[in-house]
Amino acid sequence: MAERVSKGDGELDRDTAVTLRGPGVYDATLSAGWSVGNAAVHGGYLLALLGRALGDQLPHPDPFTITAHYLTASRPGPAVIRTETVRTGRTLSTGTAALVQHDAEGNEVERVRVLASYGDLDALPDDVRTAAKPPEFPPVEQCLGPEDAPDDRPAPGSPLHERLRMKLDPATLGWALGAPSGRGEMRAWFGLADGRDPDPLALLVAVDALPPTTFELGFTGWVPTVELTAHIRARPAPGPLRVSVTTRNLAGGFLEEDAEVWDTADRLVAQSRQLARVGLI
Amino acid sequence: MAERVSKGDGELDRDTAVTLRGPGVYDATLSAGWSVGNAAVHGGYLLALLGRALGDQLPHPDPFTITAHYLTASRPGPAVIRTETVRTGRTLSTGTAALVQHDAEGNEVERVRVLASYGDLDALPDDVRTAAKPPEFPPVEQCLGPEDAPDDRPAPGSPLHERLRMKLDPATLGWALGAPSGRGEMRAWFGLADGRDPDPLALLVAVDALPPTTFELGFTGWVPTVELTAHIRARPAPGPLRVSVTTRNLAGGFLEEDAEVWDTADRLVAQSRQLARVGLI
Repeated sequence: MAERVSKGDGELDRDTAVTLRGPGVYDATLSAGWSVGNAAVHGGYLLALLGRALGDQLPHPDPFTITAHYLTASRPGPAVIRTETVRTGRTLSTGTAALVQHDAEGNEVERVRVLASYGDLDALPDDVRTAAKPPEFPPVEQCLGPEDAPDDRPAPGSPLHERLRMKLDPATLGWALGAPSGRGEMRAWFGLADGRDPDPLALLVAVDALPPTTFELGFTGWVPTVELTAHIRARPAPGPLRVSVTTRNLAGGFLEEDAEVWDTADRLVAQSRQLARVGLI
Repeated sequence: MAERVSKGDGELDRDTAVTLRGPGVYDATLSAGWSVGNAAVHGGYLLALLGRALGDQLPHPDPFTITAHYLTASRPGPAVIRTETVRTGRTLSTGTAALVQHDAEGNEVERVRVLASYGDLDALPDDVRTAAKPPEFPPVEQCLGPEDAPDDRPAPGSPLHERLRMKLDPATLGWALGAPSGRGEMRAWFGLADGRDPDPLALLVAVDALPPTTFELGFTGWVPTVELTAHIRARPAPGPLRVSVTTRNLAGGFLEEDAEVWDTADRLVAQSRQLARVGLI
């Protein structure tokens, strides 16, 4: 592991900065550094950006449960976030956020709509009453990232990969060798490339960062997210996260991807589920 | 099984009827028949009501993914639903809905906020690419409902129970006998009491209908839903549904409840996850 930067001072912090323009309205710039291939901006990064704006707008700091519907593909460049406070309670507050951009003709196009309830993770009692255990993971040294691809198989060159430090469990890497496992599973060690420790914003990136489980189910195409809901359950301890994604039901051209994120203290810090579409061949 | 009524003609249809009052605005009456104890109106019924209004407003009929944030407790009586169409696409459309009531002083209070994407279940291909199997269920004759409680342990008299035909797996009924299993599991056969066959609206009721998993984890209190997201994955076949709910993580006073709903054709027709609060003792 290389150098570390502080929370508040990393690439994710810089690229999710928002500027209050008027009541509930923020200016933002979608960074090309978080785009996938040459196409859209990464959904987890967008979720972190919207999550940050809502954290600024609402009286509570942390996204306890946040749902995003991805409407159209976001492009690097300027964007506006419009928030609405739905309700302010003692321990939870609820709000919405809409991310909009302008198309080539200058028309406003909505990219993402979010609905979320926020609280204060530090105000929660520390008890854990259930016995869920992290999934089995090989040590990070035995896991593989894009930079480990053999020279004759160049890794796909997404700018996103330079922002993340992600090492996949070889047991879920069959797809990269042309031998998908047939199981709807994907597992990886996850960190930010600049060494910044994880926080709730980083968890919002982590839940949507792994290759789609469809790769291990034998499909190679793009798998756009329709909707993603993440529950942030605890503030993560420093160090790399373990992310496990599973799919039980690929049917009718849609699938769910369930992610669990575990921290170095073996605590389940985030759970998410997304509904995605797959172009069946 | 008793008589059957047709879809469109049952208690759920009658009690989720909405009347268009103006552009995107509907009048509704929350039926006391779906209340829990003497307290709030049932969350799954509210979800079905809001889901029906959105199905009327949006160009697509079926809720593919619907998220509700429960803000304040709903009461039987008049309510207004305000919808907004966020985006209309070829295969999916997205909208929001807000359920509001008036308090004793005449002030408007928002009860539930919903964000959802709708499509057409009948337009999906019929393929199922994964091998998920329904959980093991005893035959319905070996499962138990409130009406099977011994005479000296009167069943809790929620009006809701007269709308549903629900039979719990005895393996998840330890709590009712003072011997909770300690496992975060709840399973039940589920139908509407008037014999109306299930449809997507009934699935929205089913995902929130079982006793909370916390009962089997040894907690007896009320478990209010903060947020619930349901994915409707297929139109259910006629006949009783099997609903299985699991909890992996009860921590810091919050828990998730994951529900799967299977139809008589052994198809996974709905998946849901809710974030709920528990009053820890």
